Amino acid sequence: MASPVNEVYLNHLSAALGSRVERNDADTLGLPAAECERIVAKIGIAQRPVVGEGEYTSDLAVRAGARLLQETALDATAIDTLLVCTQTPDHLIPGVSSQVHAQLGLSSGCFATDINQGCSGFIYALQMLGAMLRAGSSQQALLIHADSYSRLIRPADWSTRVLFGDAACAVGLSTRPHGWRLLHTRCYSDGRGYQDFVARHSALRRDDADLPGIQMQGPAILNFALRVVPEAITRAMEETGLQLAQLHTVAFHQANRFIIDQLRRKLGLREEQVPTNGAELGNTVSASIPLLLQQREAQLSPGDKVLAVGFGVGLSWGTALLEYVGPAR
Amino acid sequence: MASPVNEVYLNHLSAALGSRVERNDADTLGLPAAECERIVAKIGIAQRPVVGEGEYTSDLAVRAGARLLQETALDATAIDTLLVCTQTPDHLIPGVSSQVHAQLGLSSGCFATDINQGCSGFIYALQMLGAMLRAGSSQQALLIHADSYSRLIRPADWSTRVLFGDAACAVGLSTRPHGWRLLHTRCYSDGRGYQDFVARHSALRRDDADLPGIQMQGPAILNFALRVVPEAITRAMEETGLQLAQLHTVAFHQANRFIIDQLRRKLGLREEQVPTNGAELGNTVSASIPLLLQQREAQLSPGDKVLAVGFGVGLSWGTALLEYVGPAR
Repeated sequence: MASPVNEVYLNHLSAALGSRVERNDADTLGLPAAECERIVAKIGIAQRPVVGEGEYTSDLAVRAGARLLQETALDATAIDTLLVCTQTPDHLIPGVSSQVHAQLGLSSGCFATDINQGCSGFIYALQMLGAMLRAGSSQQALLIHADSYSRLIRPADWSTRVLFGDAACAVGLSTRPHGWRLLHTRCYSDGRGYQDFVARHSALRRDDADLPGIQMQGPAILNFALRVVPEAITRAMEETGLQLAQLHTVAFHQANRFIIDQLRRKLGLREEQVPTNGAELGNTVSASIPLLLQQREAQLSPGDKVLAVGFGVGLSWGTALLEYVGPAR
Repeated sequence: MASPVNEVYLNHLSAALGSRVERNDADTLGLPAAECERIVAKIGIAQRPVVGEGEYTSDLAVRAGARLLQETALDATAIDTLLVCTQTPDHLIPGVSSQVHAQLGLSSGCFATDINQGCSGFIYALQMLGAMLRAGSSQQALLIHADSYSRLIRPADWSTRVLFGDAACAVGLSTRPHGWRLLHTRCYSDGRGYQDFVARHSALRRDDADLPGIQMQGPAILNFALRVVPEAITRAMEETGLQLAQLHTVAFHQANRFIIDQLRRKLGLREEQVPTNGAELGNTVSASIPLLLQQREAQLSPGDKVLAVGFGVGLSWGTALLEYVGPAR
């Protein structure tokens, strides 16, 4: 099984958003207006896309994938690897990738599967697909991050509801040198914290005493992020021989403004190094970093280094270093 | 990101079964004894392990993983990659890998995620982990296949119920030359057939008109398997330069005896080339091929070639060629 070792590039990114918009206002949350304003000021999320009636994760995933094919003029049958990263599939069996495969008209020679990963999912997917492209087991991959957490959050649980947006982002990856070169990835996990973020009664286990829906221990997640993320970034800098000041952009998972501001200050990053897109998207789970990269492209010049940093449910986290090499296409 | 290209080996396999046994008899199925005997004769499945009360997929996965660590004396902290293949997780969020990570005491430097893949899952996982080991992004991987389909089959749906067993199989993979060398993998999918095998109302989509639970179109799946599996095997032989007669073993996914007999005859394979383990396990989804490999080891000599063939829900299928190199450990 002799195999080439290739350079891997993220060639293009395409977005799709839930078709409704939910504002973090008094009408939606059932709270006084002043309280809503206080929340929005803290988390930096004024509104979020959410799926509409009859709209599911597969619809977001297909729409993002179709847009990528259209924007890049990539032939669907050239895709040999489809990876859908989701925690909110339409069905447990089969995965969302089956529906995407059919609806995009991919070939029977295409590897197609789902991974279940949350806010670290982009880093995980890059490590996995990076290896498959480098080892020569893929030539053209399509990665789609898609989630609709809104369906798993109890309407009365406004403290969780205000945070999450439903969206998808498709990423084309190959060895062709356009877009972003993948220089480094490192993934971490600590299952001892899995109880800090669980969707109760969501799959086979329905004997939990907790109410159905997402149960998030916000303070525990915050403490975890403030502890492990700076360590992981420091290690990424050591392993790549870079200084934080040399990074054009640190693309944090868009958990919320409060966490991102604390991380930025703790690491001594300049404000202009740390873009955010949460104000109108919320936390879009594993789609959040690629959505941010897509929006950031206009500010990048060839050679600029971008560090992507995912963290969240699992608990799970990771870093990926990218170098912008020129227009995504 | 210069990376070595390594040879990859399946070093060891360890099983865990659902703690109850369900017999395909009149008591279980609510059918006349003669009808039960007719079914058992056709499918070759007399009984199946199923999960007990309070027992979930994560329990099977942890038990199989713990057994592998015990049997190999592998240090849990040496594992840098954990992949759990399941379609029946305890929760949608987080994946089963989080629970396994915690309960086996894996390190925070360990990549840990789930893939959602059914009866082709072993081939998919080998392609994915094979690439990660060859590309140097993993040195020691732990793959765990675990499912408990029994929880998604309506008790009244005896035609599906008779087929599936709940089990797990853990596989240790590394570049150390014990066990089985991975020579070749190829994965396929055809999402146009995803409606042929769907677990209705199992995750977010709950507006289907169908009854909750697994809905399987048996004849469609049979026709699919008889069409694509021989083609895929022929292609694997072409790509590896082997003849079918040179294979010591063809390890088919253990769907049921009827399908396997038809495939064997269509391909002209000798009976002794095609072992089965369904009689007391049933169709254990993605665990079925590694469970079969584990049982088959006693018949293998170094140099023997084994072709693993997965097929099922997705629709999805694939082949993996292995060469036995000596005792698994």
